[in-house]
Amino acid sequence: MSTYTAIKLVARPAPGPVSPDIFEVVQADIPQAGPGEILVKQTHMSLDPAMLGWMSPDTDSYIPPVELGAVMRSSGLGEVVQSNHPDFAVGDRVMGMMGWTEYYLGSGQGLNKLQPGLDAETVLSVFALPGLTATQGFFHVGHPKAGETIVVSGAAGSVGSIVGQLAKAEGLRVIGVAGDDEKCGWLVDELGFDGAINYKTDDLDAKLAKLAPDGIDIYFENTGGPIQHAVFHRMNAHGRVVVCGMIADYGKQEPDAGPSWIPIIKKRLTIQGFTMPDHLAEAPALTAKLAPYVMTGKIKHRSHVLAGLEAAIGGLNLFFTGANKGKLIIRL
Amino acid sequence: MSTYTAIKLVARPAPGPVSPDIFEVVQADIPQAGPGEILVKQTHMSLDPAMLGWMSPDTDSYIPPVELGAVMRSSGLGEVVQSNHPDFAVGDRVMGMMGWTEYYLGSGQGLNKLQPGLDAETVLSVFALPGLTATQGFFHVGHPKAGETIVVSGAAGSVGSIVGQLAKAEGLRVIGVAGDDEKCGWLVDELGFDGAINYKTDDLDAKLAKLAPDGIDIYFENTGGPIQHAVFHRMNAHGRVVVCGMIADYGKQEPDAGPSWIPIIKKRLTIQGFTMPDHLAEAPALTAKLAPYVMTGKIKHRSHVLAGLEAAIGGLNLFFTGANKGKLIIRL
Repeated sequence: MSTYTAIKLVARPAPGPVSPDIFEVVQADIPQAGPGEILVKQTHMSLDPAMLGWMSPDTDSYIPPVELGAVMRSSGLGEVVQSNHPDFAVGDRVMGMMGWTEYYLGSGQGLNKLQPGLDAETVLSVFALPGLTATQGFFHVGHPKAGETIVVSGAAGSVGSIVGQLAKAEGLRVIGVAGDDEKCGWLVDELGFDGAINYKTDDLDAKLAKLAPDGIDIYFENTGGPIQHAVFHRMNAHGRVVVCGMIADYGKQEPDAGPSWIPIIKKRLTIQGFTMPDHLAEAPALTAKLAPYVMTGKIKHRSHVLAGLEAAIGGLNLFFTGANKGKLIIRL
Repeated sequence: MSTYTAIKLVARPAPGPVSPDIFEVVQADIPQAGPGEILVKQTHMSLDPAMLGWMSPDTDSYIPPVELGAVMRSSGLGEVVQSNHPDFAVGDRVMGMMGWTEYYLGSGQGLNKLQPGLDAETVLSVFALPGLTATQGFFHVGHPKAGETIVVSGAAGSVGSIVGQLAKAEGLRVIGVAGDDEKCGWLVDELGFDGAINYKTDDLDAKLAKLAPDGIDIYFENTGGPIQHAVFHRMNAHGRVVVCGMIADYGKQEPDAGPSWIPIIKKRLTIQGFTMPDHLAEAPALTAKLAPYVMTGKIKHRSHVLAGLEAAIGGLNLFFTGANKGKLIIRL
């Protein structure tokens, strides 16, 4: 094989499900590494809800949008197949923002070498964006205390599932919110959550009242939607809301209104948004904080693996439907 | 005179303007101070928007509601006329939560003696609840930095006017929001605000764009209402929203919806509610922080004085209409 495939973003997405027309699949000759460069054959790519924001032209966002005509942005994992760089050897496994491409050519800047022994799915599911995001948000925005009650929306997702397990390990009462009974069962039976709510079929107020009888101290928000309002009105005094994602609203022409601010003052709540790009300098410390939980078996994960680069296009829409079971990964 | 007047709360308020029927004006004989007690003749009482919350039976609030049949809660200032307490002498001026009454009998607990030389209106307008609230919220919740832009709603009110003047003194660009042109003129011409918006007549988006061309770093929220949404969508990355009051919503059956949480994540905003009762232990430190600004003439104030205890009943409704010009004080 002397050619490879990459996928470029060529149009901005309209609200709602992502149309394949906004991408262009291109073929090119596999390049040679020039002076100081390395060539990486990517083996696994991560699909993340944040990508929906990266494609949008909204200049308000925390990271510049992907330029039209550029390879779509993503993090991934691969093997160095050519190297003219003193820090990288052929055979090294590396990780970084290589984009939707089978081969990545570059200076190696921003790529990190992987510790041996970690499988690709664990790396992308736990030690990449999801795990860092969960660790930063739970500890440094949520300020958890043992004995408190936390509700996590998108709890079966890559970030939510780690947040909930960190919370269990820290002695909190953990309620997860997910979109089907299989996921709810996984949260309680496999991950040890204290309860789970199916936001599509359960009576949200009644179920919350039952599962969180002492109110809610931390709400870790990954989704938006009706659960936001139901949880918000059960927050305890001095509660913290960690706003990490709003997937239910990303595809809407007009986002839903938020709850009234009256409880913010009555209960002295803090609502704080955060995104990992602000905290990349803390990534080593966050990894060090997270690692012991993983090593002692307290963080389980599951991956939803799709095969082949072009599967990424349709894979994005799984975030809207919630049809993925676990962290979305493209195996190349 | 051997009798005095007090006003009791005898019913919970319905949404909307406060009906006089929820109060009962009572007469009683002026009591004698018993062992360890003091008798205070109150001279000035403060009316504060927080009272609207104190009358409501909502158990979620930060402070227990006033019990039905009890004297209505308020802070005030008076003169000790009898004392059987070693810490108080006849003639001492004291301040504290004495309630809607011409005479207060008690142990003196919770009453503070006033420094000589301060007039009653300055004490109640600056060194009581409004000044402490403004100082706590501006410095410890807003985390201001010189050169930033702050928008203050309810800017001509007792808290807002102090927040804006502290912000000017600290080198921020200050935009005030008020409900009539006279107040807007006072903010700019007398208090030195950089701009003012009449929320009843101005085009909010256009005026904000003009007055805050570089976006908004801090929003000090005293009112709620449409200005909340207009300001929220102009917040800068890492902006802080200090939620101190929501007067526009207190009288409504159903409070207005808040803004979508999408900007909270895109711009990594922090929205934090606070109330002074959580911070009463810090009152001496807050007073010490505020005093130099007052002593150097950087904090001006104006009072709206009503005469006679019974004027308090109608006075509460001025918070809904915004018809008061300055801090509401009842002179007894």
